[in-house]
Amino acid sequence: MIISFEGIDGSGKSTQAELLLSRLEKQGIDVLYVREPGGTAVSERIRSILLDPEAEMDPFTEMLLFSAARSELVRTKVRSVHESGGIVVCDRFFDSTVAYQGGGRQLADPEWLNRFQRAVTDQIVPNRTYLIRVDIETSTRRLENRLGADAAADRMEQAGTEFFTRVVETYDRIAAAEPDRFRVMDGRKGIDEIAEAIWEDLESLLST
Amino acid sequence: MIISFEGIDGSGKSTQAELLLSRLEKQGIDVLYVREPGGTAVSERIRSILLDPEAEMDPFTEMLLFSAARSELVRTKVRSVHESGGIVVCDRFFDSTVAYQGGGRQLADPEWLNRFQRAVTDQIVPNRTYLIRVDIETSTRRLENRLGADAAADRMEQAGTEFFTRVVETYDRIAAAEPDRFRVMDGRKGIDEIAEAIWEDLESLLST
Repeated sequence: MIISFEGIDGSGKSTQAELLLSRLEKQGIDVLYVREPGGTAVSERIRSILLDPEAEMDPFTEMLLFSAARSELVRTKVRSVHESGGIVVCDRFFDSTVAYQGGGRQLADPEWLNRFQRAVTDQIVPNRTYLIRVDIETSTRRLENRLGADAAADRMEQAGTEFFTRVVETYDRIAAAEPDRFRVMDGRKGIDEIAEAIWEDLESLLST
Repeated sequence: MIISFEGIDGSGKSTQAELLLSRLEKQGIDVLYVREPGGTAVSERIRSILLDPEAEMDPFTEMLLFSAARSELVRTKVRSVHESGGIVVCDRFFDSTVAYQGGGRQLADPEWLNRFQRAVTDQIVPNRTYLIRVDIETSTRRLENRLGADAAADRMEQAGTEFFTRVVETYDRIAAAEPDRFRVMDGRKGIDEIAEAIWEDLESLLST
């Protein structure tokens, strides 16, 4: 079973992914935790190019590098856990590419990108995707707080409000198109409340 | 105008690409010479991952990294020269990916790869492609001579005879499918004879 968390920066998705991870581990369940880009030797080398603020690159190149890192992670790690019945928790997965590179950077038709991403993952798709939804203002405020503490904004966080507005809209469209896979959570609610809603949903999914 | 040279290692394509380059430069023509993967800061960083014998990776990941390096080179350098009426000489271009990753490694349908590569290059296709064709025996003999002089075979050259047989067959199919773009040269002929045939063909192409 593959469970992915999606949302813009500042939505709280990483917090929720980590809470779910520790809750599953406390139950003695073996979980592969995945945070892209990275997770394999080759993917980490790709990550260092992608997150280098000095590495100016074309958006299509950027999308291909994210996809290469994902391809390696899925084909060398995620697939075997998935096929052996294990659980994989992903802090972002291919919907991020569709929302950020397709919607945000507008570099290709999101539909084309969606199909391409399924070739990248060899047709491996999450069983459940939690979209933690926040408005741009909440996201911006949380990011500013975070960046105050840690002055170095990485390249992905420097893209601006219009960019993130398009990302949010694309996430909404993706989620609406696949209602069986997606569960949309209101990211302005409290952390514990969201975590509980996710856990309830996941328990019912695991018991089917 | 974009002119690409294709063929298996040991075919003589690099020699011919360099001969054409110097002949064009002697005529005072400004030429962008391109040898993939590489040619931009990001593409060189990708190249260092691809050619590292220690970097084991899935063939699909490899294809995506070659494509990312190509995307960056085309979108930041080749396109502007092409659009301003300049000449670009490529020692390998996207047909290599179709022949090597599609035919050689059999990782995806060569037809799908061919369409995908046109997305990678934003629909930029060579005006002329010279396929320098040699049999596997000739290629192997030349490679052995070369590797005797330079003991370090890079990862692409360690793939073996069956691999190269499939690459040759795929090149033949690609060339047959696009007879207007491709000119197939017999790589067992003398270097000067091939160079002369290429020059004659190119002169007639440039004068049209």
